[in-house]
Amino acid sequence: MNNQLTVDLNCDLGESFGSWVMGDDKAILPYVSSVNIACGFHAGDPATMMNTLALAKQHGVSVGAHPGFQDLAGFGRREMQVTAREVYNLVVYQIGALASCAHVQTLNLHHVKPHGALYNMAARRPDLAEAIAQAVYDLDPALILYGLSGSELIRAGRSKGLKVYNEVFADRTYQQDGTLTPRSQEDALIRDPEQAASQVINMVKDGKVTSLQGVTVDIQADTICLHGDNATAIQFAKTIHQRLKEYDILPL
Amino acid sequence: MNNQLTVDLNCDLGESFGSWVMGDDKAILPYVSSVNIACGFHAGDPATMMNTLALAKQHGVSVGAHPGFQDLAGFGRREMQVTAREVYNLVVYQIGALASCAHVQTLNLHHVKPHGALYNMAARRPDLAEAIAQAVYDLDPALILYGLSGSELIRAGRSKGLKVYNEVFADRTYQQDGTLTPRSQEDALIRDPEQAASQVINMVKDGKVTSLQGVTVDIQADTICLHGDNATAIQFAKTIHQRLKEYDILPL
Amino acid sequence: MNNQLTVDLNCDLGESFGSWVMGDDKAILPYVSSVNIACGFHAGDPATMMNTLALAKQHGVSVGAHPGFQDLAGFGRREMQVTAREVYNLVVYQIGALASCAHVQTLNLHHVKPHGALYNMAARRPDLAEAIAQAVYDLDPALILYGLSGSELIRAGRSKGLKVYNEVFADRTYQQDGTLTPRSQEDALIRDPEQAASQVINMVKDGKVTSLQGVTVDIQADTICLHGDNATAIQFAKTIHQRLKEYDILPL
Amino acid sequence: MNNQLTVDLNCDLGESFGSWVMGDDKAILPYVSSVNIACGFHAGDPATMMNTLALAKQHGVSVGAHPGFQDLAGFGRREMQVTAREVYNLVVYQIGALASCAHVQTLNLHHVKPHGALYNMAARRPDLAEAIAQAVYDLDPALILYGLSGSELIRAGRSKGLKVYNEVFADRTYQQDGTLTPRSQEDALIRDPEQAASQVINMVKDGKVTSLQGVTVDIQADTICLHGDNATAIQFAKTIHQRLKEYDILPL
Repeated sequence: MNNQLTVDLNCDLGESFGSWVMGDDKAILPYVSSVNIACGFHAGDPATMMNTLALAKQHGVSVGAHPGFQDLAGFGRREMQVTAREVYNLVVYQIGALASCAHVQTLNLHHVKPHGALYNMAARRPDLAEAIAQAVYDLDPALILYGLSGSELIRAGRSKGLKVYNEVFADRTYQQDGTLTPRSQEDALIRDPEQAASQVINMVKDGKVTSLQGVTVDIQADTICLHGDNATAIQFAKTIHQRLKEYDILPL
Repeated sequence: MNNQLTVDLNCDLGESFGSWVMGDDKAILPYVSSVNIACGFHAGDPATMMNTLALAKQHGVSVGAHPGFQDLAGFGRREMQVTAREVYNLVVYQIGALASCAHVQTLNLHHVKPHGALYNMAARRPDLAEAIAQAVYDLDPALILYGLSGSELIRAGRSKGLKVYNEVFADRTYQQDGTLTPRSQEDALIRDPEQAASQVINMVKDGKVTSLQGVTVDIQADTICLHGDNATAIQFAKTIHQRLKEYDILPL
Repeated sequence: MNNQLTVDLNCDLGESFGSWVMGDDKAILPYVSSVNIACGFHAGDPATMMNTLALAKQHGVSVGAHPGFQDLAGFGRREMQVTAREVYNLVVYQIGALASCAHVQTLNLHHVKPHGALYNMAARRPDLAEAIAQAVYDLDPALILYGLSGSELIRAGRSKGLKVYNEVFADRTYQQDGTLTPRSQEDALIRDPEQAASQVINMVKDGKVTSLQGVTVDIQADTICLHGDNATAIQFAKTIHQRLKEYDILPL
Repeated sequence: MNNQLTVDLNCDLGESFGSWVMGDDKAILPYVSSVNIACGFHAGDPATMMNTLALAKQHGVSVGAHPGFQDLAGFGRREMQVTAREVYNLVVYQIGALASCAHVQTLNLHHVKPHGALYNMAARRPDLAEAIAQAVYDLDPALILYGLSGSELIRAGRSKGLKVYNEVFADRTYQQDGTLTPRSQEDALIRDPEQAASQVINMVKDGKVTSLQGVTVDIQADTICLHGDNATAIQFAKTIHQRLKEYDILPL
C-alpha cells in the first residue's frame, strides 16, 4: 500500500512570441513537474513551441497544451464573445499544432490547460467547459484536463470520462465559498512565499484552505499553479518546492 | 495486370478566412480527387478548416494539408526571407493543426502540398525543399508530398523515401526546359478549356508537353492542379474531368 | 428659409482584406451619401483603404472612419473585454491611419462610425462612448460622430460638443422602448424593401417608428444605414433611395 | 557665424507589443535626441505607441515614425516580396497612425525612419526608396527622412526635396566601399564602446571612417543609430554621448 502524498506543480511556458521574450523558462523548470505550452494564438509561434518542447524534454517534465483566444494584442486575457463551437474548434486546432511539434521530438502530450480568459470563462460557463472537454476527449481520451479546482471545467471533464486535475493557486487568497478573491480586490494576492507554501501544504495534506474571512473551506488540490515571470515568482516556486519536500510530498 | 491509366486531380480548398469567403468550394469538389486545405497561416481558420474537412468527407475526396507563410495580408503569395529551420517548424505546426481537425472527424491526411510562395521557393531551393520533406517524413512517412513536377521539392521528397506526386498545370504554358512560363509573360496562361484538356491528356498519356516554342518536352504528371476561384475555373475543371473520362483515364 | 428635408444614407465600405473581397462596393455607391471605411483592425488593409478612398472620391460621397476591434478572425463582431483607455487608443490609431490615406488623395474625413461590437458596446456603455467621443474630439472637433439613434454614444458626442448623426436602420424592426429587436429574435429583420422604405420615410418625415408591438415611438433619424453585401441589399438601397426622392427628401 | 558641430543621436523606441516588453526605453532616452517609434506593423500597438510618445515628450526628444513590414512574427526583419505601391501604402498608413497618436498629445512628428528589412531594401532598391520618399513628401514635406548614409533612400529623399539625415552606426564596422560589413561576417560588430565612440567622432568631425581593411572612406554622418536593447547597449550610448560632449559636439 502506498500512502505517499504527491502533487503536480505546473507553470505556463513558451509564452514568448517572435523576437519578444516572456518569463524565465529555464529558471522555473527545476521546480515544476508539468508545463503548459502556448500554442500560437495568445502567445508562442512554431519556433518558440519547438524550442520550449526541447527544453521541457531536457528537464524531464510533462508537457501540455495551453490553448487560448486568438488575441496576441491582449495576450488571451480579454474575455470574448465566443460560441461553444468556436471554442471546440480553436482547442482542437491548437492541441494538434503542439502535439505535432511534440511528435517530431518523440514527445507525447500529457495534459491540456486552457489559458487566461478561456480558462476563466470555462470555469463558469458549462457550455464552454463542455466544448473544451469534448475537444480533448475527441483528440485523445488519455489527456488530463487541468481546470480551476471545483469549476465547471472540472465537472465537464469528469462527466466526459477524462482524468482531471483540480488546480489551486499558491499566491492567491480564497473566499469562503471556495472561489478565488478577484484580483481587483486588495488581499487578492499572497506576497509572502512562506505563507503561500503553508497554504499549499494545507491544501495538499488536508484538502482545506483558510479563506480571507478565516473560514476553513474544502478544496481539492491536484496541481499547483506556479509562475516564472520574474525573480519573485521564481523565489515563490523555490520555497514551495522546498516545503513540499520537507513535508514528504513528492512532485508527480 | 493493370494498365489502367489514372491521375490525381487536386485543388486548393478552405481558403476563406473568418467572414471572408474565397472560391466556390462546393462547385469544384465534383471534379477533383484530392484537396489541399489551408491551415490558418495564409488562409483558413479553425472553423473554416473544420467545415472544409466535413465538406471534403461528404464528397469522398482525399484531404491534404496546404501549409503557407504566416502572411494573411499577402495570402502567402509573397516570398519571404526564411531559414530552413523556420520552414520546418511552420510546416510541422500547420500539418498538426489540420491533422487534429481531421482526426476529430475520423479523417486521415493523405498528402501535403505547400502553398504559394512556399511552393515556389521549395521548387528551387534545395534547403527549403529538404526542410519540408523532413517535416512531412517526421510527422508521418505515409503522407504523399505534392510538388512542382521535376522540382527540388520532388527530389527532396524522393530522397527522403516519401511517395511524391509530380504536379502539372492544365492552364499554364511550359517552356522548353520544362519550367512554367512566368506569369509576368504573355502566353503564360491557357485560356481555352479544350486546349487545357488536350495538354493534360498528353501529359498523362505520353508524359510529354509541347512548349510555347513548339518543342516536345518530357514531363511527369501524377496530379493536375485545378482551381475553384470562379465560374471560368469551374468550367475548366469540368471540361478536363470529362475529357479524361473519355480517354478512360480515371481519377485516382 | 429652407424647409427641405434631407437625410444621410451611409454604408460600410472597404471591408475587403488582402485577397479577400467583401461586398460590392461599386454597386452600393450610387445610393449613399456617406461611407464608413474599415481601418485595418477588423477589415481593410492599406491597399484596400487607398483604393476604397479613391472609389469614394470618384462618386463624390463623404468619407468616414469605421474603427473596430483588432479581431480579423471575428470581423470585429465579437464583444471583447476592453477598457475605456484601450478604446480611446484604438480609435485614435485607426482614424489617423485612414485620415493619412485620405490626405494623400486630397480628401478629408467627414465622420467616424464605430464598427460592429464596438458600435454596440458604445451604444450601451457610457465609459466607452465617452472614450470614443473624446478620441474624435481630440483629433478633429469638426468630425461628425455617427451612433445608434438615442444611444449613449450620441449622448457622449453631444456632451463633448461634437455634431452627431443619429443612425437608424431600414431593415431592422424596433421595440416599443425604441431599441432594435435583437437579431436573435424572429421578426428582427424587415425582408420587404417597400416596408423598409416606408419605415425610413416615417422616421425621416415624422420622427416616428412603429414598433413590432404596434406602438408609435419617437426616433431621431439623421442617417440611414444601408448595406452592400449582396444583391438583395443593393435592391433595398435602390428602393429606399428612390422612395426618398419621391418624397422629396434629399440625400445630404 | 556658427561653427558649432552638432549631430543627431537616434534610437528605436516603443518596440514592445501587447504584454511583451522589448528594450529599456527609459534607460536609453537620456542619451538620444530623436526616437523612432514602431507603428503597429512589426511592433507597437496603440497603447504602446501612446505611452511611448508620452515618455518621449517627457524627455523632450524629437519623435519620428518607424514603419515596417506587417510581420509581427518576424519583427519586420524578414525581407518580403513587395511592390513600390505596397510600400507607399504601408508607409502612409503607419505614419498617419502614429501622427494621430502624437497629435492628441500635442506632439508633431519630426522624421521618418523605415525599420529593419524595409530600411535595408530601401537602401538598395530605387523603386522602394522612391515610394517611401513620396509617401513622406505627400504627407508632410517638412518631415525629415532618415536613411542609411549614402543609400538609395537618401538619394530619393533628396531628389524629392525632403530634408534627409544620413545615418551611421557606432557599433558596426565599414567596408572600403563605404557599406556596412554584413552581420554574417566576423568583425561586423564593434564590441568596445571607446572604439565605437572614436569611430563616431571621426565620422562627425571629419566625415571619414576607417574601413576594416584600414582604408579611410568618406562618409556623411547626420545621425548616429544607438540601441537600448540591453545593458551593454546602454553603456555604448552613454560612452558615445559623453565623448561627443568632450569634443564639444552637441546633440541636435
